[in-house]
Amino acid sequence: MKRILIDMDDVLADASARFAEYATERMGKAVSKELLQGHNWAASIDIHADTVKSWVHEPGFFRGMQVMPDAQDVVRRLMEQYEVFIVSAAIEFPNSLKEKVEWLAEHFAFIDWRYIVLCGHKWMIDADYLIDDHEKNLATFRGTPILFDAPHNQSLTGYQRVKSWKDVESLLLNEQVPV
Amino acid sequence: MKRILIDMDDVLADASARFAEYATERMGKAVSKELLQGHNWAASIDIHADTVKSWVHEPGFFRGMQVMPDAQDVVRRLMEQYEVFIVSAAIEFPNSLKEKVEWLAEHFAFIDWRYIVLCGHKWMIDADYLIDDHEKNLATFRGTPILFDAPHNQSLTGYQRVKSWKDVESLLLNEQVPV
Repeated sequence: MKRILIDMDDVLADASARFAEYATERMGKAVSKELLQGHNWAASIDIHADTVKSWVHEPGFFRGMQVMPDAQDVVRRLMEQYEVFIVSAAIEFPNSLKEKVEWLAEHFAFIDWRYIVLCGHKWMIDADYLIDDHEKNLATFRGTPILFDAPHNQSLTGYQRVKSWKDVESLLLNEQVPV
Repeated sequence: MKRILIDMDDVLADASARFAEYATERMGKAVSKELLQGHNWAASIDIHADTVKSWVHEPGFFRGMQVMPDAQDVVRRLMEQYEVFIVSAAIEFPNSLKEKVEWLAEHFAFIDWRYIVLCGHKWMIDADYLIDDHEKNLATFRGTPILFDAPHNQSLTGYQRVKSWKDVESLLLNEQVPV
């Protein structure tokens, strides 16, 4: 059985929408997630990077994210054909760790805790596919990297890009015979 | 550079001593860690498994563990010759996650957060060595498994056993030319 690693922020969970929500509510800016482009998206909408960092360390930031459209349905079906691990580079944010486990327990209750990995680097995990929004993770992965479209990675090239979980479905479940 | 995975409980951190401490303080039993043998060690000293489980979920249980003798010195020196990851099956205990990261930051400050992995299974991590006290992790590891001696694994055979961090030093650092 082939193994897939799936990232959390901006892949399963709508991190960009959460940033836009905080920017709108806290800073009085009408910011949509589409505006959060590039590594310096905070500066481009005139928010200091330290402010964004403080949000990320705030209790509830990760816990309150929305699930990406179709993620639950497609992940559940991937698990019928693949060994699926959820792999999030979360150690940098110790307050996020419990929130991420609780978030998965709420929204992806069908994923056993043994298939959750909270880490920093991802290159030491052996798998066939990695679905991730960050080049640093995709570039060092030895399997097939799949770039999940996010506002901050619009200029990144050289990777198979999926725009949605429907795209993941087409790419990884298209050999499935309909029942 | 070869890669080593190092477990936390009963390898870097003296989990058995922590259980003995709780049994002594909470249950009024003069329990030494050497008594905690086998998978049913709790029953053998007349403590209900649910009581032990409640300790593990209690804030501070992981944070207050003692460092294993010589672990700091040997891990620091291993890091000069190997890529070292700390890999703990901690997701089952969401309250332990932050405590484990904080514990490492205090006692192993020289380990970058990117080399910490909190997970369930360990078989998907690609490495040359795994130092662990549990057969379930060693048996599914594809590199060279190294059994770290613990009260609960005394009857386990079939693995290279190290009794201490001095033994790890002899096994993995003995090719080092003294300077």
